[in-house]
Amino acid sequence: MAFWRELGERVVGGPSILSADFAHLAKDVERTKAGGAEVVHFDVMDNHFVPNLTVGPAVAAALVRATDLPVDAHLQVERPESLVPAFAEAGVASITLQPETALHLHRTLTLIKDSGCEAGVALTPATPPESLRWVAHLLDYVLVMSVEPGFGGQRFIPESVEKVRRVRELYGLPVQADGGITPVTAPRMVRAGAQVLVAGSAVFDGGDPERDMRKLIEAGRSGR
Amino acid sequence: MAFWRELGERVVGGPSILSADFAHLAKDVERTKAGGAEVVHFDVMDNHFVPNLTVGPAVAAALVRATDLPVDAHLQVERPESLVPAFAEAGVASITLQPETALHLHRTLTLIKDSGCEAGVALTPATPPESLRWVAHLLDYVLVMSVEPGFGGQRFIPESVEKVRRVRELYGLPVQADGGITPVTAPRMVRAGAQVLVAGSAVFDGGDPERDMRKLIEAGRSGR
Amino acid sequence: MAFWRELGERVVGGPSILSADFAHLAKDVERTKAGGAEVVHFDVMDNHFVPNLTVGPAVAAALVRATDLPVDAHLQVERPESLVPAFAEAGVASITLQPETALHLHRTLTLIKDSGCEAGVALTPATPPESLRWVAHLLDYVLVMSVEPGFGGQRFIPESVEKVRRVRELYGLPVQADGGITPVTAPRMVRAGAQVLVAGSAVFDGGDPERDMRKLIEAGRSGR
Amino acid sequence: MAFWRELGERVVGGPSILSADFAHLAKDVERTKAGGAEVVHFDVMDNHFVPNLTVGPAVAAALVRATDLPVDAHLQVERPESLVPAFAEAGVASITLQPETALHLHRTLTLIKDSGCEAGVALTPATPPESLRWVAHLLDYVLVMSVEPGFGGQRFIPESVEKVRRVRELYGLPVQADGGITPVTAPRMVRAGAQVLVAGSAVFDGGDPERDMRKLIEAGRSGR
Amino acid sequence: MAFWRELGERVVGGPSILSADFAHLAKDVERTKAGGAEVVHFDVMDNHFVPNLTVGPAVAAALVRATDLPVDAHLQVERPESLVPAFAEAGVASITLQPETALHLHRTLTLIKDSGCEAGVALTPATPPESLRWVAHLLDYVLVMSVEPGFGGQRFIPESVEKVRRVRELYGLPVQADGGITPVTAPRMVRAGAQVLVAGSAVFDGGDPERDMRKLIEAGRSGR
Amino acid sequence: MAFWRELGERVVGGPSILSADFAHLAKDVERTKAGGAEVVHFDVMDNHFVPNLTVGPAVAAALVRATDLPVDAHLQVERPESLVPAFAEAGVASITLQPETALHLHRTLTLIKDSGCEAGVALTPATPPESLRWVAHLLDYVLVMSVEPGFGGQRFIPESVEKVRRVRELYGLPVQADGGITPVTAPRMVRAGAQVLVAGSAVFDGGDPERDMRKLIEAGRSGR
Repeated sequence: MAFWRELGERVVGGPSILSADFAHLAKDVERTKAGGAEVVHFDVMDNHFVPNLTVGPAVAAALVRATDLPVDAHLQVERPESLVPAFAEAGVASITLQPETALHLHRTLTLIKDSGCEAGVALTPATPPESLRWVAHLLDYVLVMSVEPGFGGQRFIPESVEKVRRVRELYGLPVQADGGITPVTAPRMVRAGAQVLVAGSAVFDGGDPERDMRKLIEAGRSGR
Repeated sequence: MAFWRELGERVVGGPSILSADFAHLAKDVERTKAGGAEVVHFDVMDNHFVPNLTVGPAVAAALVRATDLPVDAHLQVERPESLVPAFAEAGVASITLQPETALHLHRTLTLIKDSGCEAGVALTPATPPESLRWVAHLLDYVLVMSVEPGFGGQRFIPESVEKVRRVRELYGLPVQADGGITPVTAPRMVRAGAQVLVAGSAVFDGGDPERDMRKLIEAGRSGR
Repeated sequence: MAFWRELGERVVGGPSILSADFAHLAKDVERTKAGGAEVVHFDVMDNHFVPNLTVGPAVAAALVRATDLPVDAHLQVERPESLVPAFAEAGVASITLQPETALHLHRTLTLIKDSGCEAGVALTPATPPESLRWVAHLLDYVLVMSVEPGFGGQRFIPESVEKVRRVRELYGLPVQADGGITPVTAPRMVRAGAQVLVAGSAVFDGGDPERDMRKLIEAGRSGR
Repeated sequence: MAFWRELGERVVGGPSILSADFAHLAKDVERTKAGGAEVVHFDVMDNHFVPNLTVGPAVAAALVRATDLPVDAHLQVERPESLVPAFAEAGVASITLQPETALHLHRTLTLIKDSGCEAGVALTPATPPESLRWVAHLLDYVLVMSVEPGFGGQRFIPESVEKVRRVRELYGLPVQADGGITPVTAPRMVRAGAQVLVAGSAVFDGGDPERDMRKLIEAGRSGR
Repeated sequence: MAFWRELGERVVGGPSILSADFAHLAKDVERTKAGGAEVVHFDVMDNHFVPNLTVGPAVAAALVRATDLPVDAHLQVERPESLVPAFAEAGVASITLQPETALHLHRTLTLIKDSGCEAGVALTPATPPESLRWVAHLLDYVLVMSVEPGFGGQRFIPESVEKVRRVRELYGLPVQADGGITPVTAPRMVRAGAQVLVAGSAVFDGGDPERDMRKLIEAGRSGR
Repeated sequence: MAFWRELGERVVGGPSILSADFAHLAKDVERTKAGGAEVVHFDVMDNHFVPNLTVGPAVAAALVRATDLPVDAHLQVERPESLVPAFAEAGVASITLQPETALHLHRTLTLIKDSGCEAGVALTPATPPESLRWVAHLLDYVLVMSVEPGFGGQRFIPESVEKVRRVRELYGLPVQADGGITPVTAPRMVRAGAQVLVAGSAVFDGGDPERDMRKLIEAGRSGR
């Protein structure tokens, strides 16, 4: 599977599972797929890097078995290298690192790729894109966070739009936008260069994930 | 809800969700309920206290909404006090602490009880029951671990049987047995005084959770 | 100075500075001295062992210069050994350790004594007195906490009375009582064997530290 | 209160409390006010980020009650976000973060501002000003440290002058100079663009805080 | 190899490499062997559990290749479980854990034994022997420290003699004595029940390791 | 001794002790000296910053006594400042810091220089050379790592060549190349500006350290 390398110029969307119903996860993901989702964003939090604990490799493995969408594991954890093998074995398509926590970033990115997954790095709102200069050749994509990691129900940070533009300019890599993405913010991110839009509450909180997933993708594509 | 205080002299069983199918969690739990389960054991791991990351408060909240069985959250995490409010709000019936990680154990037990949950402490295989002497009056139950926390597929530790007996002798509290519990080990633990039997692989790995839950409970009760 | 070794059979009291007015610390301490205080309890918190940051060696040094009462520094911090030299140089009379944080407890107690200070250990509500068996010969006193360290405005924990008794029985050392000490609880602690009573809010929150210090000491002595 | 936003083009000074007499803090601060001080710099150290423990929120609250000068709390601590609420409640005018310790810098700056305080970031001697690019819009000022944080009695680092210039050039924000500021170094920092001068030993060690505060401010203003 | 299980009733001695010449380690060890040494004590320190960093698995492997004496690796480190595989592969005969750092003590002892090594636990001066009650069946020996771990040139702690006696009484396991062992203290430890005597400075600092090793062993045996 | 300041334009080489025989360290180093080595690279790892524990100050001191080559201590450890005094006292010529772990980098570099050693910083593959801008005036050299620190048997990272060039361009300081240096990669690093070549397996794994040290140096010099 090579989700990011085969993305080409397309704009796609997918659910962030943070707002899904975890007792019926497979069903909730399938509903977004019916609405056009092409990827699943899987937020892993360990209550150390961020003050929340979500889900780990066993849940990822169950999700991979239950859906044929590629799963992107976003490791918002300390010592992410310790979890890479379990997520690779779980069958996720790509793994996103927080560079603040990946003390040996070059090594951990290599580990991800050697495990057969695609590799990305997430930029928090305060992180300069220039910091990726010496690992960019190892990346399949960059995730631009438009809220702080780990905190729910946050305001979209408007400076993120400029950051997407800067990442595209520096590296030309596909950009994933995560955090406060709605039909209002999505086209702005796409116009700046983002191609993969993930959303949690905009998709799951309205009661109709299929409809809202579709709306988000359409809004995003209108940004082109 | 007062699962532990109303337990009386009964021997009951329930699934440990570690081995369930997390993409269809509600369904898997319901199948064990059909087999007689009266409680759900919810293993929370943070990849710090133990080398595994499982599930957190949002999954617990979804499970509480999906089942009417009481949920016991076993916090195998560092700084458990930071997660107590979220689990209480998720609606779990009881919270089990690892004393190694609860720096202010008296305070955290009080916090659990003030949050409306019942409170327990888990003894790892190396922990002496005597160490609970000065918090025993705050406990609704003691969990005796018959394997090490956080590691899967382990051998049942036979010294645990003697530890159950010692806990009963010292404190007279209800004892929950967790780790390597099967129809073979369950009656030994019950004979020593255990009343609540939780099992993961013995219930979920055989393909028929309803049948295997029932077998486990029957085996356990035969220990009386 | 040898406050603890010269204590004999006397019951004495002193302020815990936690509730004093830190902009006029010298004055507040002098008012309690007028009320009969014979020692000052100095709570050091680092926002790591407990979730609060209070005062450190420079404040202790200023206080030692400003009063002739002996100052007891209670280190509610991680790595207390790193602060022992600064507190000894500040001129405190005694240093109290939390054994949970003193990884090399024997060594750190020796360090305190080699620095010319008297040495004590504080028992939190959950800590068994038996745990001090192999360092008791190095101690000048034991502090029994009747609330959890680091948290203000807490309920007095009644099991502390029994713990004072047990400490006296095991070691025969002077006992300091700290946490929720008021004219109501003081005589109970004294009856069980406590000799040094420290109090914060009972002394400073009523507007007249001199009067309330005196009341506390008198109440305590009535417990004999 | 909006100390930084109303600073305009003025050059002002104030005491760093590190060298004050903590037993008579209110009096010492008032003496510098008589010498022209318009702000108080409050150094918070936790013995973790730096090897010293100073003072926390309760001392800040007492100081705010005792003086009408605005207090700037400089958090030289790990996990500064955990102390922001207590300092805001203590009534400080502004809070300065060390970005090395503020894992979620954007979030913590927002937290400060939402608490009604002004927000700044401190640059240690090794930290490049460019690192603030993506949070500069959230800042009310930048603190340039001309010594390392947490260590007393240090040599003024001359490269700091160039750093003040660079910060002004990049962001145009007010600059506070802290560390080794004396009548000799102050005019150099002001000439480079600094507007707020704080000093500890230069103000308190000479025996006449009023006179020395005045000297420092006059020297600084001569740099214009 | 089964050094501890085949020890029987014998009293033996060996060098602690801490005081050896690390540039000619093989030679120094051979000289103690000529003096009768039957085991090598290998102190591993990581500058975290103790404030010193000594030697790790690669040095152990070189030593195992260079001598036919059994090597006992004493892990005075945090997270000892992370180093067990490397030391087992290096060919050491036994591994000694500090229980303060082995969060999952039962599991780590099992890991050592499953790796083909013998397993022991070290008691620091403050640690009660009773704390080993629930892992004693996994131990091949107990190490009683008669100084604090990690600190050189320390005074022998006389209470250690009584601790050796207590360990023998409780568990009947072979006891290793480490710290301040000299011809004066050795017979006291042997009389109390110790069988394996290790010494650093008493063996290497006198200029003639062969002679001083012999003296130590003879002195020890005289304690019988 | 002033190895780095007296280096001039020369290209020199030396062994990295990681692959030496630690039971006969002095001998192994002398063999590389016979092959032309002019410096010894001493890798210090603490099993925290990197997952390996190697050797510390006592081994360095023994090596300094045994050879007259200057020793460069590369501190791949957390809290390197805690080990600087011991290495300075051991007599090493220079100390290399990892900036990721030197929280107070300016201060620790000053500490090294005040101890009489030369000071360098190591750039891991992911670290941008620009990050050294504000400490460059304190440096005697820069170490460019061409593999990740702490992991053995790794592939040479080709982007390192460009990084050497960039470091030379920015700072004009001598550059040390470390990691995967062989007769094949050495000339590329020298061509880019590296002057000091260190190698472990290329020197020690072939059975003839003298010959292989000579080969490496000759290959490196051919890059000029």
